[in-house]
Amino acid sequence: MKIGRMATVAGAHVCAVEGDRVVDLALAAHAAGREWMAPLFHDLRLFLAAGDMARDAAAGLAASGPVVALDSVRLLAPIEAGSKILAHVVNYFDHGAEGKLTPPEQPFFFTKLPGTAVAPGDPIGGHDFSRKMDYEAELAVVIGREGRDIAEADAYDHVAGYTVCNDVSYRELQANEAAPTLTGRYGQNWIQGKSLDRSCPLGPAIALARDIPRPYPLRITCRVNGETRQDASTEQMIFKIPALVAHISRAMTLRPGDVIATGTPAGCGVADGRYLRPGDVVECEIEKVGSLRNTVLAAVRS
Amino acid sequence: MKIGRMATVAGAHVCAVEGDRVVDLALAAHAAGREWMAPLFHDLRLFLAAGDMARDAAAGLAASGPVVALDSVRLLAPIEAGSKILAHVVNYFDHGAEGKLTPPEQPFFFTKLPGTAVAPGDPIGGHDFSRKMDYEAELAVVIGREGRDIAEADAYDHVAGYTVCNDVSYRELQANEAAPTLTGRYGQNWIQGKSLDRSCPLGPAIALARDIPRPYPLRITCRVNGETRQDASTEQMIFKIPALVAHISRAMTLRPGDVIATGTPAGCGVADGRYLRPGDVVECEIEKVGSLRNTVLAAVRS
Repeated sequence: MKIGRMATVAGAHVCAVEGDRVVDLALAAHAAGREWMAPLFHDLRLFLAAGDMARDAAAGLAASGPVVALDSVRLLAPIEAGSKILAHVVNYFDHGAEGKLTPPEQPFFFTKLPGTAVAPGDPIGGHDFSRKMDYEAELAVVIGREGRDIAEADAYDHVAGYTVCNDVSYRELQANEAAPTLTGRYGQNWIQGKSLDRSCPLGPAIALARDIPRPYPLRITCRVNGETRQDASTEQMIFKIPALVAHISRAMTLRPGDVIATGTPAGCGVADGRYLRPGDVVECEIEKVGSLRNTVLAAVRS
Repeated sequence: MKIGRMATVAGAHVCAVEGDRVVDLALAAHAAGREWMAPLFHDLRLFLAAGDMARDAAAGLAASGPVVALDSVRLLAPIEAGSKILAHVVNYFDHGAEGKLTPPEQPFFFTKLPGTAVAPGDPIGGHDFSRKMDYEAELAVVIGREGRDIAEADAYDHVAGYTVCNDVSYRELQANEAAPTLTGRYGQNWIQGKSLDRSCPLGPAIALARDIPRPYPLRITCRVNGETRQDASTEQMIFKIPALVAHISRAMTLRPGDVIATGTPAGCGVADGRYLRPGDVVECEIEKVGSLRNTVLAAVRS
C-alpha cells in the first residue's frame, strides 16, 4: 500500500493506492462508521505526523474500501501547500561530470517553491521564455516526524516514505547565461532556474518507509517519449539520506510532509543538448516507489 | 488603517490596526450582522485577493469595532503558510560595498522558507551553530493580485501593500566558510544562510498601497539595543519595485499574499563584525509602514 492525495468533491483527501486500486481514506472512515478518524485523512501532514497508528488505520480502511479504479481518480502531488521542498545539488558523480560541476564537499541544498508542485499526469513547462528545459529524476524523501539537529543515526526515524520527484530545471536561467558574472558572486539562479510555474512533479504516491527499509539500491530511470535517458541506481548517491537529513536539519526544523529531493543521476538534457520540447512525455520511475509521468505543455501566454 | 493577522481563540484572523487600536475583522463582521463577510477575514490571501471591495469593507468594520488595545493582542506575521517569500540580493550600493559584493546586473532573488516567518515581538535566532547572525531591515512588498509576466508599467496594480522584513542572515553559512570552494560552483548558501528557524520577522502589519502610492523615499532604519545601525532611504534601491516584480514574475506566478523583500541598505553586522547576540533587541522601522521589534533568543537545544 502506498499513500497519495486525491481530488474529491469534498477537497483533497489522503488515499491508499495499491496497484490500480485506490481508496479515499476519509470516505472509507465514514463508510466504516469511524467518522472520528476522517480528519486524519484531510491533510497529509496530519496523517504523516500520526505515525504508525495512522498507517495501520489506513491499511485497515484500505482493505475495507470502497475501492475505485486508479484511472478514475485524479491523484494530486503528495505535498501540502505549507510544506517545503529541499533539493540537493549534484549528488551523483556522473551528473556532476555532464554538467561540468564538481560535486560539493558537503551537502548543499536549494529549494523548489511548493507552489510549483505538479500532480502526476499534469502538464509541466509551458514557457517559451526558456529553450533549455530539462528533466531530473530524483528519489524524494518524505519526512514523517518533526526534528531538528537530527543525528545521522536517527535520520530514518524521521522518514515516512519515498516518492518520485522530477526536478524540472531551466538551464540557461540556472546558469545565469544572460549575466554570467553573477555566478561567481551570487551563485546559480536556484529560484528562476528551478521554480518556474509547473516545475516540480511529485508522486504518484508515497511508498512507506516500512515497506522499503533501505532505499539502496533502487533503480532510477527517466524516459522521454519512451527513450531511456537516465538509468542508474540510488546506490550511487554521494551523500546518502542520513547525511542529507543530518546536514539540512541543523538549526532548521524538518516537519511531517516536508520533502527532500536527493539529486539526479546522469543523462539529463544538459549533457547532450537534447532539451524538452512541447509535447514530450517525461516518465521518471524508481523501483518499488513508482512512476511519474508528465507531458510538456506548449507555451502559455498571459 | 493597516492590515494585520492576529491570534484569536478561533484561529488566525485578519485585523485592522490603527495606532494602538486593533479590530478583529472576522469578529467585527459578526458583531455588525454581516456574518457572510467573515470568511474573508479568515485567510489573508482571500482578503488581499478581494481587492478594494475587501479593503473598503475592512475600513467600515474597523470603524464599527469592537476595538481592543494593541498591547492586548498577539499579532502574527502577515503571511499565510502557503505563500512564498522572495528576497532580493544586494539592492543598495552601500550594502554591496560592506559585503564586498558588486550588485547584480539584473534582479537576482533567493527565497526564505515561509516556515521561518516570525511574528512581531517573537524571538529570533537561538542557534549557537552560527556566530555570525546578522540583521537586514527591508521594505517588503505584499502581492494583492495574481499575475505572471507582469509588465513594469503594471507592477503596482499587483501590489496590495508594504510591510517590514528583517532578513535575518547567518553569514558564515551564507558564505560557505566551511567549504569556500562551493561558492564559485554553486553559489552562496541561500538556504542555510537565510532560512534557519526563526529567521524571517515580518510585520507588524501591512500598510496598504492606496495609503502609500509611491514607496519612495521612505526612511528605513534598524536599531540594535537602541543604537541606530542602518539608516537609509528606499530611494536608494538599485532596482525599484516595478523592475523586481517584472523580473521575478517571468514564467512564475505571483499570488495574493506572496512577499518580495527588496534588499537591505548598509549598516549590517557584516560590515564591522558586530553580529547579533542573545538578548539583543532588533528594531527594523520603515516610515509610514511600521516598526518590527524582535529579541535574539539564547541557544535552544533539542
